[in-house]
Amino acid sequence: MTQMELNKRQTEILEIVKADGPITGEHIAERLNLTRATIRPDLAILTMAGYLDARPRVGYFYSGKKQVHSVGDEMIGMQVGDFQSTPAVVTEHSSVYDAICQMFLQDVGTLFVVDEKACLTGVLSRKDLLRTSIGNTELEKIPVHVIMTRMPNIVYCHKKDTLLSAARKMIDKQIDSLPVIGTATEGLEVVGRITKTNITAAFLTLAQDHEL
Amino acid sequence: MTQMELNKRQTEILEIVKADGPITGEHIAERLNLTRATIRPDLAILTMAGYLDARPRVGYFYSGKKQVHSVGDEMIGMQVGDFQSTPAVVTEHSSVYDAICQMFLQDVGTLFVVDEKACLTGVLSRKDLLRTSIGNTELEKIPVHVIMTRMPNIVYCHKKDTLLSAARKMIDKQIDSLPVIGTATEGLEVVGRITKTNITAAFLTLAQDHEL
Repeated sequence: MTQMELNKRQTEILEIVKADGPITGEHIAERLNLTRATIRPDLAILTMAGYLDARPRVGYFYSGKKQVHSVGDEMIGMQVGDFQSTPAVVTEHSSVYDAICQMFLQDVGTLFVVDEKACLTGVLSRKDLLRTSIGNTELEKIPVHVIMTRMPNIVYCHKKDTLLSAARKMIDKQIDSLPVIGTATEGLEVVGRITKTNITAAFLTLAQDHEL
Repeated sequence: MTQMELNKRQTEILEIVKADGPITGEHIAERLNLTRATIRPDLAILTMAGYLDARPRVGYFYSGKKQVHSVGDEMIGMQVGDFQSTPAVVTEHSSVYDAICQMFLQDVGTLFVVDEKACLTGVLSRKDLLRTSIGNTELEKIPVHVIMTRMPNIVYCHKKDTLLSAARKMIDKQIDSLPVIGTATEGLEVVGRITKTNITAAFLTLAQDHEL
């Protein structure tokens, strides 16, 4: 990465300009008890890196918040909670037929199965439902708990997890979606759903935020 | 972005160090017919930005290719052809039953339908197949061309397209996968498949390449 680490003096200059800009190089030097010549390379670096703008006879001013975050910084900072979707759930005693209807109604690729306490007990993918429905005319009679993926085979994440870690889980485990689990101490409360669609949208957000 | 634009002199210095580093500041200045003092800010900038490394009594040397590309640069440079998967195809006269089997055998979420000239005529999603299979016991008798999405409703892309443009198409059209079309002048030759899984993998590649 060409992302720069600012040294202490450059950070100080940035703070001064943020607080009091536009301000001339001479005044910045005075504030730091340094000569103009000493801080000239620092000002050049800050200007070139896009932290500061300079205007003749006006001085230096701060170029705006957006430019101090690199694409990489934004990427690391992305959290599951900022990109998650609403979860679509069915209860354990729902039929496979009901689950398929819910999947179409809510237009999702994965359904989460919950017990009477609304805690996660299973996951149903479009693939699970398709497999069961081939040539089967009695889908109303099969409860979803017969075909769902159960704990400990469910991979999940939390709101505060990085989006990168969620993406890594989906690729490593070859799954399209993860339930987002809340902080309740008893059971696994489903508070969201993170999918490859959310990751794709995040990828576009990165590009848009940085005008790529 | 804090990504820096190098000026002409800095680019020249970088070229000199790439070709002949390690090289001292004095020697770089000589080569450019400038004084050491003149190029001091440029060397400081190049070092701080991670393009060059400096060692006492040795001089400046090039810090390695990886560091001259920012996350943003790499993101813009990503092309469909570098991330695409193998396409999974069925012919127009295949049955829905055959298509479902192919979808499971090849473990894909989308099948492309081709005519006798191997040109794209349709797309089948897991959702299309699930919708058709509910309560239907004669899936062997329904040809896929009855249920597939046809042109002009098929959204596709090319190998040389940016991954960003492919991601944008998938999000805008709410689809999980795009066929990648070759350069043959007649018909739409399917040469690949790009999915939200590929985009998610690219997202992780960005992070890994830049050690995020």
